[in-house]
Amino acid sequence: MSKEITSRATDYSQWYNDLVLKGGLADYSAVKGCMVIKPYGFALWENMRDNLDRMFKETGHVNAYFPLFIPKSFLSREAAHVEGFAKECAVITHYRLKNDPNGQGVIVDPEAKLEEELIVRPTSETIIWSTYKDWIQSYRDLPLLINQWANVVRWEMRTRLFLRTTEFLWQEGHTAHATAEEAVEETEKMLDVYATFSEEYMAVPVIKGVKTANERFAGAVDTYCIEALMQDGKALQAGTSHFLGQNFAKAFDVKFSNKQNQLEYVWATSWGVSTRLVGALVMAHSDDEGLILPPKIAPMQVVIVPIFKGDDQKAAIDAKVNTIIQELKAAGIRVKYDDNDNNRPGWKFAEYEMKGVPVRMAIGARDLEKNVVEVARRDTKEKMVISLDGVTQYIISLLGEIQQNMFNKAKAYRDEHITEANSWAEFEQLLDEKGGFISAHWDGTVETEIAIKEKTKATIRCIPLNNKKEAGTCILTGKPSEQRVLFARAY
Amino acid sequence: MSKEITSRATDYSQWYNDLVLKGGLADYSAVKGCMVIKPYGFALWENMRDNLDRMFKETGHVNAYFPLFIPKSFLSREAAHVEGFAKECAVITHYRLKNDPNGQGVIVDPEAKLEEELIVRPTSETIIWSTYKDWIQSYRDLPLLINQWANVVRWEMRTRLFLRTTEFLWQEGHTAHATAEEAVEETEKMLDVYATFSEEYMAVPVIKGVKTANERFAGAVDTYCIEALMQDGKALQAGTSHFLGQNFAKAFDVKFSNKQNQLEYVWATSWGVSTRLVGALVMAHSDDEGLILPPKIAPMQVVIVPIFKGDDQKAAIDAKVNTIIQELKAAGIRVKYDDNDNNRPGWKFAEYEMKGVPVRMAIGARDLEKNVVEVARRDTKEKMVISLDGVTQYIISLLGEIQQNMFNKAKAYRDEHITEANSWAEFEQLLDEKGGFISAHWDGTVETEIAIKEKTKATIRCIPLNNKKEAGTCILTGKPSEQRVLFARAY
Repeated sequence: MSKEITSRATDYSQWYNDLVLKGGLADYSAVKGCMVIKPYGFALWENMRDNLDRMFKETGHVNAYFPLFIPKSFLSREAAHVEGFAKECAVITHYRLKNDPNGQGVIVDPEAKLEEELIVRPTSETIIWSTYKDWIQSYRDLPLLINQWANVVRWEMRTRLFLRTTEFLWQEGHTAHATAEEAVEETEKMLDVYATFSEEYMAVPVIKGVKTANERFAGAVDTYCIEALMQDGKALQAGTSHFLGQNFAKAFDVKFSNKQNQLEYVWATSWGVSTRLVGALVMAHSDDEGLILPPKIAPMQVVIVPIFKGDDQKAAIDAKVNTIIQELKAAGIRVKYDDNDNNRPGWKFAEYEMKGVPVRMAIGARDLEKNVVEVARRDTKEKMVISLDGVTQYIISLLGEIQQNMFNKAKAYRDEHITEANSWAEFEQLLDEKGGFISAHWDGTVETEIAIKEKTKATIRCIPLNNKKEAGTCILTGKPSEQRVLFARAY
Repeated sequence: MSKEITSRATDYSQWYNDLVLKGGLADYSAVKGCMVIKPYGFALWENMRDNLDRMFKETGHVNAYFPLFIPKSFLSREAAHVEGFAKECAVITHYRLKNDPNGQGVIVDPEAKLEEELIVRPTSETIIWSTYKDWIQSYRDLPLLINQWANVVRWEMRTRLFLRTTEFLWQEGHTAHATAEEAVEETEKMLDVYATFSEEYMAVPVIKGVKTANERFAGAVDTYCIEALMQDGKALQAGTSHFLGQNFAKAFDVKFSNKQNQLEYVWATSWGVSTRLVGALVMAHSDDEGLILPPKIAPMQVVIVPIFKGDDQKAAIDAKVNTIIQELKAAGIRVKYDDNDNNRPGWKFAEYEMKGVPVRMAIGARDLEKNVVEVARRDTKEKMVISLDGVTQYIISLLGEIQQNMFNKAKAYRDEHITEANSWAEFEQLLDEKGGFISAHWDGTVETEIAIKEKTKATIRCIPLNNKKEAGTCILTGKPSEQRVLFARAY
């Protein structure tokens, strides 16, 4: 083994950190709570970003860019919004440093104090709706379907690489519509885009649902979400899409004249996913040997390792591998040939297992003679010896099979971990012994929701879309309930 | 005309602002000095970014992401660096807001003061080299060839859309090498990438050169640059590539063991271009009717406008246009069909002229009968009637011709505006009457350079690479000089 990884059974949390650090995805930084996304992790994020970006554009959205800074007073315009974000804001108060007259280094120049403090955006509804006021006059200006890829900052006391960092990268869509119906339709459409991306690209099955009032985005009328399940039985919110009603239009006085020439407030949505998805990906699929990345977004899909003695064997292998690589690249496959002679094949095998490369090919002199190559799948660890004739077609279908297998496996695990609880005792036992989503009746009040969270750390992850109505009694209070909701402990 | 544009002759500066605002590239924001990049402007930037990103990857670079914030003490580590940036730093002093006990809104929570202030990155050498210390131990870890796409903040008192804004988007490459020679080679290679991008994609000819000590990046041993010329005769620095020597390695104690197992400081480069390039593009090519965008990076390369009376004509045109569009898209051409019936053809013609779309096609019922279409070039304003047979091939070659013509025109203008001055009187006269680059002798001292700047606002843009040596006397002091350098007033 090239590097030691803590096993999931020993310490799931440490296992996760080991994978992120030793797999080369990210590193801690000198700034508390902020991480460095390393080249391999960033290449993974780029593949996620590029696919999402294409899906956004295919659904009619365009990208733009709004300022990093938000005047402090803007946050206060929407009451719930400021309540939700005020406690985690990075605040700019000065715009200049000067030499310390009493010694070395630099100090903040007290004469360069801002009249109004600026907040580093925790999210951009306020700065964007202050801009939309200038862009929207008539129904002809609607809908506005704009997305932004950006960094945001929410001051976090307890951080985890990718899952919860003070600065993170994300996209935030901000759309403006003439009617509530159209805005709700947009909210649901983008939730579908997220679910499709998560399932088809990340191979992570998700449950689509609506948040309770208590878990809503600060300033939203309704928050839709996709919820995924990690291998330790904890849930993870993988994306949210908000119907904002007219809240931000009212806060920033954004009206349009409708076809009847009457002024109305504009309807809004916002929706986002972030680098947090990288954490979800790691925790949903990986094992005790390292990362397992789905082929569609893996930075390297195939790695080829030569096994040889002497320059003659190496030259013969190189010649064959170059042909294979040309064919694979022509088929759009991301392939790397690792003939670095500082490391031995066994070290490389462990390294690429750690990095989660979906397919490894090893080729030696005897393989060449037999016109075969050894192919190893990262997901199942199966090894096959296959003919070099038609190897490209084989790899193409193998990558498809791995993608599907990873999804099936994650889905089987997730499906096995949605359990009904019909009493408080059962609920607590399931949480502690089995984990996963627990489908249970709840009386619909915020008080009960909070009480359950305080007793068990479990939260209502969502009310699934198209949830069936079913009369029952709340597991905690025994009061009447009209439907089950999904509880879980969550990241 | 759909919108009024100030002419270049009337007010060049206002002309530029009109183009940026009315062409839909950017807008002012509620935050002083920060701009909003509008969808059309952002699509242009995306095309620039994607081509640069591909060129970086083709030259062996990978992307990563480092924190937005830099601990204040990091800036002080490199003396010249802090001197250069301290006066324009946005400073985070607090991490929380709270409700104002005396009234409405929120105030900064005095109890949430940071022990050490954080600076919003003006550039990332310090945070990156503090990280490289952990990543580099041996010569086997070198070179590190990393790029980052990011937003940066430099507090500016006088801002101009794209050209000088407090926040801007850019890329910054930060590489680490085992030898000075290799680092210098990298510095020059990336300057070449920038020059190639500027000339082949932006159609903006540039002069490659080295900055004087006075104009060097804060912390660099040598700053290389590409300098472009705008239509008002002012120069614009379009990209810089810095050889940083061992300055940052020493500041952050980054050493590696070489092949002889001896510890050495690492050699560094950094290089960047920014959204400023959008401003350069606008000013290099556009005219009094609007933007003129080079086909290779124009968000729309072709727009098709139908001209019709009644639904029957429209249906016939639609059918034909759909075929054309399919063909153009299959050839990789970015085409838009504008059949919005809120606006008349004349309004659309003016609008797409304003937006600088390289090719406009107009097609009416009579054209259909004759199997022809009217094609208008944005760069020369020529109109041609061409056969619909083979229209795709025609458009492909026309786009290539427009790209080349734009470059040739800009290059002819630039070449006509490099003038030798051999006396102070001639120098001043050229600056005031002709503008452009003035090639003149300079005695090589910072004092003279500053004196010339104070008298004329002209700066030394660069000492061109491969400059020929030529004995002469300084235009200001009469002292001996061994080569001419390029002066200009600049953005």
